[in-house]
Amino acid sequence: MENHKKLSPKLSLLAASLPSTVPFVAPEMTERATGKMFIARLGANESSFGPSPKVEKAIADACSEVFKYGDPDAYDLKQELSKHWNIPAENIIVGEGIDGLMGTLCRLMLDQGDIVVTSNGAYPTFNYQVLGVGGVLEVVPYLNDFEDPDALLSQAKLSGAKMIYIANPDNPMGTHHNAEKIQTMIDSVPDDCLLVLDEAYIELAPNGVASTIDVTNKNVIRLRTFSKAYGLAGARVGYAIGHIDLIKAFDKIRNHFGVNTIGQKAALAALKDQAYVLKIRSAVEHGRNRVEQIALENGLTVIPSSTNFVAIDCGADGDFTRKVLAELVGMGIFVRMASVEPQDRCLRVSIGVPEDIERFALAFPIALERAHAS
Amino acid sequence: MENHKKLSPKLSLLAASLPSTVPFVAPEMTERATGKMFIARLGANESSFGPSPKVEKAIADACSEVFKYGDPDAYDLKQELSKHWNIPAENIIVGEGIDGLMGTLCRLMLDQGDIVVTSNGAYPTFNYQVLGVGGVLEVVPYLNDFEDPDALLSQAKLSGAKMIYIANPDNPMGTHHNAEKIQTMIDSVPDDCLLVLDEAYIELAPNGVASTIDVTNKNVIRLRTFSKAYGLAGARVGYAIGHIDLIKAFDKIRNHFGVNTIGQKAALAALKDQAYVLKIRSAVEHGRNRVEQIALENGLTVIPSSTNFVAIDCGADGDFTRKVLAELVGMGIFVRMASVEPQDRCLRVSIGVPEDIERFALAFPIALERAHAS
Repeated sequence: MENHKKLSPKLSLLAASLPSTVPFVAPEMTERATGKMFIARLGANESSFGPSPKVEKAIADACSEVFKYGDPDAYDLKQELSKHWNIPAENIIVGEGIDGLMGTLCRLMLDQGDIVVTSNGAYPTFNYQVLGVGGVLEVVPYLNDFEDPDALLSQAKLSGAKMIYIANPDNPMGTHHNAEKIQTMIDSVPDDCLLVLDEAYIELAPNGVASTIDVTNKNVIRLRTFSKAYGLAGARVGYAIGHIDLIKAFDKIRNHFGVNTIGQKAALAALKDQAYVLKIRSAVEHGRNRVEQIALENGLTVIPSSTNFVAIDCGADGDFTRKVLAELVGMGIFVRMASVEPQDRCLRVSIGVPEDIERFALAFPIALERAHAS
Repeated sequence: MENHKKLSPKLSLLAASLPSTVPFVAPEMTERATGKMFIARLGANESSFGPSPKVEKAIADACSEVFKYGDPDAYDLKQELSKHWNIPAENIIVGEGIDGLMGTLCRLMLDQGDIVVTSNGAYPTFNYQVLGVGGVLEVVPYLNDFEDPDALLSQAKLSGAKMIYIANPDNPMGTHHNAEKIQTMIDSVPDDCLLVLDEAYIELAPNGVASTIDVTNKNVIRLRTFSKAYGLAGARVGYAIGHIDLIKAFDKIRNHFGVNTIGQKAALAALKDQAYVLKIRSAVEHGRNRVEQIALENGLTVIPSSTNFVAIDCGADGDFTRKVLAELVGMGIFVRMASVEPQDRCLRVSIGVPEDIERFALAFPIALERAHAS
């Protein structure tokens, strides 16, 4: 090989074919680009209520252990999750947030060229991870702002898909299917197909949305997180629940020591403080109502939400919403919007603390007016 | 596909071929298996001195921001690293520890069947990541307890390897090559080959070990971490320095939001407190001398170390060292040992706080005696 002068190390064929990109532009990126700090952070469905005071104490206590690598088994956390969900710990894998788990899952399941079915406009990071291993995405449309289980299943059957992705409740629209509908979907997944059921927002959904966990079912894996209701997006702790064979398979390729020590302790404390989750549910419901009121005050409607964000139908097309968004960002309000038609008529506002929502309330009519005028 | 009853979702061909394993058994795993807690944690080259008090303060302060996703650019940290190493920020990528970066790097560089050359007995997690993407490992022996740049290069040239791995200083032996030797190695890497230069312990090495960083060189990527000298193993923050093309390529597949918020703030504070690093260097040097003294007191010698651990030559073969290790573990002393001949005559003792070293000092002669007697 030493004769081939002027060569340089080549990326893998797959990597060479992929773009360098980011699934989401972070608010910090925008702040650096504009030179202006956001005054309200309502775009990433973070919980600006923050974690429970008990979690804050756990983080402070964990400081003395930050010199230690995190437990690769996340044993204590898995034991508590096991108790909490009444399932064996061996059916749970803890990872670096749902994003991290999705990356590992795609590597585990997909050969290059394998087909994955999702909804057009659903979670971009999942798509990024599928493409990152050479998977092929097929999309079906939303149906009236809901992900469409029947269409997803039909497409998967038609194309012999390896995986189907659905989020329940959905992001970015905030809609949900009830447990029965999801159970019917699980029961209808082709035998050789895996349903990736993203339940990032499940703790914030009404009762009756979470379908019963059956860890003997090989056709579904559930993704959960401490990033939303628990207020720990920055801690990077998510988990997956599934059949033991699939959960064990994560040990083939995962970054065993990837979940940080403080995050593990924080998640454990968060899980133990369910009273705080109830408070957050109530605060988020209050916030959703307030955002609906703001929409109504501006002559607009919202999509009923089962999450910690609300999609406001801006009453026109995506170009209009993009203008509204740009105006809001210009006024220091970080929000996001749906990415594809027809959902992109909607602005997505995360439910943060009331002060932030009120900053949005002040800016929104101005943004709408300017967008109309432009 | 719906006709194939009794099928279940299959792993990818590659994943199906891999074992479920863990590159390192964590001390917590052993504690749970034995039902006994370790009284001295000297096995994972963690720094039980912990991070700087300024870092502890940064962690406490960061608690209020843990609800936010971490900055995917790790902008502040990269700016500080850029200043510290006098290289452009665009040549740095921050990731979930060196392990996380290795995983992404292997995915970026290797097609299935590509050859990677490393030393027999070098860092197992790197090997795990190579195998995890279908890479093929070729190993060369250590030369007198040193990794052997010439042998690595020869083997790479012979087999047309895509990557070569070397750690400087080395783990698990603790030896180093000086900057000139490493520079000669860098200059001799085949044009189409990438040298993965693992410098996890560089902050603890004598002056003159770190070779000059040249970010225009496409044939080398350096891996660094906050896990060792900075006492932040549990924070999961590492970084890589390389040519801009390769660094940019990480954005093709990395988990952008994978580096936790507190870890980023902690690493930034750690980097700014170089006075603390000097203290740790001094404390580690003191600890190394103490471990050498302990070895001598037991009629043994050590391999001179440039890291925060010391390999004690137990004076016999690997079977004997395994017995010594088992006795130590039985007495609550967590240490590790080299994995392959002839390095496996050595026990590896991390330099922790003096109390832990003295617990080892008490247990070691007993362990040696029992191992001799058995």
